[in-house]
Amino acid sequence: MKPVKVGICGLGTVGGGTFNVLQRNAAEIARRAGRGIEVGQIAARQLNPNCDLGSTPVTDDVFAVVNNPEIDIVVELIGGYGVAREVVMQAIANGKHVVTANKALIAVHGNEIFQAARDKGVMVAFEASVAGGIPIIKALREGLAANQINWVAGIINGTGNFILTEMRDKGRAFEDVLAEAQALGYAEADPTFDVEGIDAAHKLTILASIAFGIPLQFDKAYTEGITKLTTADVNYAEALGYRIKHLGVARRTDAGVELRVHPTLIPEDRLIANVNGVMNAVMVNGDAVGSTLYYGAGAGAEPTASAVVADIIDVVRTLTTDPNNRVPHLAFQADSLSDHPVLPVEEVETAYYLRVQAQDRPGVLAKVATILSERGINIESIMQMEAEEHDGLVPMILLTHEVLERQMNDAIAAIEALDDIAGPVTRIRVEQLN
Amino acid sequence: MKPVKVGICGLGTVGGGTFNVLQRNAAEIARRAGRGIEVGQIAARQLNPNCDLGSTPVTDDVFAVVNNPEIDIVVELIGGYGVAREVVMQAIANGKHVVTANKALIAVHGNEIFQAARDKGVMVAFEASVAGGIPIIKALREGLAANQINWVAGIINGTGNFILTEMRDKGRAFEDVLAEAQALGYAEADPTFDVEGIDAAHKLTILASIAFGIPLQFDKAYTEGITKLTTADVNYAEALGYRIKHLGVARRTDAGVELRVHPTLIPEDRLIANVNGVMNAVMVNGDAVGSTLYYGAGAGAEPTASAVVADIIDVVRTLTTDPNNRVPHLAFQADSLSDHPVLPVEEVETAYYLRVQAQDRPGVLAKVATILSERGINIESIMQMEAEEHDGLVPMILLTHEVLERQMNDAIAAIEALDDIAGPVTRIRVEQLN
Repeated sequence: MKPVKVGICGLGTVGGGTFNVLQRNAAEIARRAGRGIEVGQIAARQLNPNCDLGSTPVTDDVFAVVNNPEIDIVVELIGGYGVAREVVMQAIANGKHVVTANKALIAVHGNEIFQAARDKGVMVAFEASVAGGIPIIKALREGLAANQINWVAGIINGTGNFILTEMRDKGRAFEDVLAEAQALGYAEADPTFDVEGIDAAHKLTILASIAFGIPLQFDKAYTEGITKLTTADVNYAEALGYRIKHLGVARRTDAGVELRVHPTLIPEDRLIANVNGVMNAVMVNGDAVGSTLYYGAGAGAEPTASAVVADIIDVVRTLTTDPNNRVPHLAFQADSLSDHPVLPVEEVETAYYLRVQAQDRPGVLAKVATILSERGINIESIMQMEAEEHDGLVPMILLTHEVLERQMNDAIAAIEALDDIAGPVTRIRVEQLN
Repeated sequence: MKPVKVGICGLGTVGGGTFNVLQRNAAEIARRAGRGIEVGQIAARQLNPNCDLGSTPVTDDVFAVVNNPEIDIVVELIGGYGVAREVVMQAIANGKHVVTANKALIAVHGNEIFQAARDKGVMVAFEASVAGGIPIIKALREGLAANQINWVAGIINGTGNFILTEMRDKGRAFEDVLAEAQALGYAEADPTFDVEGIDAAHKLTILASIAFGIPLQFDKAYTEGITKLTTADVNYAEALGYRIKHLGVARRTDAGVELRVHPTLIPEDRLIANVNGVMNAVMVNGDAVGSTLYYGAGAGAEPTASAVVADIIDVVRTLTTDPNNRVPHLAFQADSLSDHPVLPVEEVETAYYLRVQAQDRPGVLAKVATILSERGINIESIMQMEAEEHDGLVPMILLTHEVLERQMNDAIAAIEALDDIAGPVTRIRVEQLN
């Protein structure tokens, strides 16, 4: 089957990331989608220094892409309500499918856009418009489709969460952190959309419509920013066992739907209260599933591109009615499964926690350390405990750097052979999970 | 369009939950799927006291369902490798789509089952087989389809996580907690599958195949249980800044794929280290998206049913090639959006944190409490701080129960009108997010 041609409109942060992900993972993506996906044309006012465009055609006229008969899917990554809206509406009018990351456009003009798309029988996909790389729209719209959704609550603006995290962790004032966020590029020169909750309200409007099956109603969302929060309130909340987060909350009640963005105290033992820095997380509570949570990077070039490209693949699947083009059972087309072997555990490399029960004699620690170092195993830390009363043995706790299991087996056998050691060495693997 | 007929094989915990969710949410599900979904027949050895089956036909012969020409989708909720495998293979042979929650069956016989399904052009969906209600298969297979997946790591056995949580929180011994888990019904009479990591290895095998595009290879998974973990190790790990979790880890390296289930030390500040009790969570790291996390109930009647029914809806969408049967933009069919109103913020009910800057005089607290109580606002706690040096004002912190915003506005106006109060009252909403 010939490759699908994608036209990228806008080559800024997300556009550049989308181009790069499509290029770098082209083979992997084709193995999943069952069909190649190629960038057929790019519209950009200026080139992106992070992209090597090769021979990809570039134009400075977005409508050249929209009207290009070779292009199957138009990817709108311009942002804003102006040209972006014209691009999307014209692409639909031309019978092209659309993928967009534009939360403002969807929240404000989505009803009109979706009506036009239905009339033309084309798809408009917008996973990247909410919470960047987290596939929250897919989870809510498909994964939880069995549920009556009770509520959705999310940290859906990374800039705001970065500011609140710094205020709490370092006792810094709002203005101080905002200035740093602007210097780091997390916050725009005009931070209003982020800190006043408008960006979060755009995203919440979209989530609420999907959760409750209501039209998009951004103008009815209540928004309250974080500009008036003081470190005093952050500290008092902490003393009461709470964290303050800038939350978007949509809840269904008998009277109606709540749609609100505001600073919120959350009990500190909730997972979402511990989502820090620029990260995003969305909780969804359904009548069957209970509470679920989705966490990840809410912005940035490649996390957002991850969602844009997933949408492109979804659209590609609808371009044919061939059953072979359904989502494959194991994600990859059955004829392109990999024969990459599963490693025996001896070939697995991890860090280790070791507990050695040693006689309380001088020199034991040195002997253990020597056995490890002779096998090239680096020790990250050693903790020697008090002797235990009942047997006089001294527990020695070691954390090692990463090492092949095979080498660790050998080292443990040598340690257990020492006269100074009682019983088997306890070992537990360590994972950093960054 | 006439309703799709589903046949449920097995009416135990998950079967009963699936029946109940399909009944209770029938209208909501039809609004999403664009088509009714009805239970056409049930095969059960005994009735489930939690289900009111009404006039739904029941048989004790599962093959009566599998061979019923009225049934479009066979839902296998029997479990195990025996009859379940025959049911699934016969349903496929009969040209029926299959939905299953059976991790053991998929992990061990999935390659054969998927081949048969491809040959017949039918779907086999199995979201419920991993992590209950968390839509992790959909997230990994579709939501992250743009990524080269680097690793997957998950707490995917609730019984094991309950035991480890109790060992840490209460310093209890493994055997002691296991006995309680069995009494509570979290653990089977024969707990081997749970505590030895076999159940987790089934699920990890499925996740790894979807992540890396390799055939299912359960026999190559390394499994190590939690039966030898001591509270001493739990405590030492804690002293080093780690938590111990029973983790399934699948990682792609140049040499091969790691596939392993074992107790694991995780730094305590990672979100997944704070997933406690019977809850499940899966982390997925992709080259574009970075690290993401998915959290929710990994077992139980309705959480698992949530995934089963989502799969049924996915299958229903493939039964027609009508573009109107695609996933709707806003999750619900455009002609069945709800006119449930968005509430003005004055009609929203939440709990509140209030900070009142009061003169350091006797009786102020009583006046504030009276204003609140006169308006039916219950106070959960009051914290009176030390006077601040520069202005002699005393910050008074109150947490209230839930109240309408309108009433709170009225109360705050009254408080601000007191002579004893300086400046505006700070208010921040409180959400429990259970």
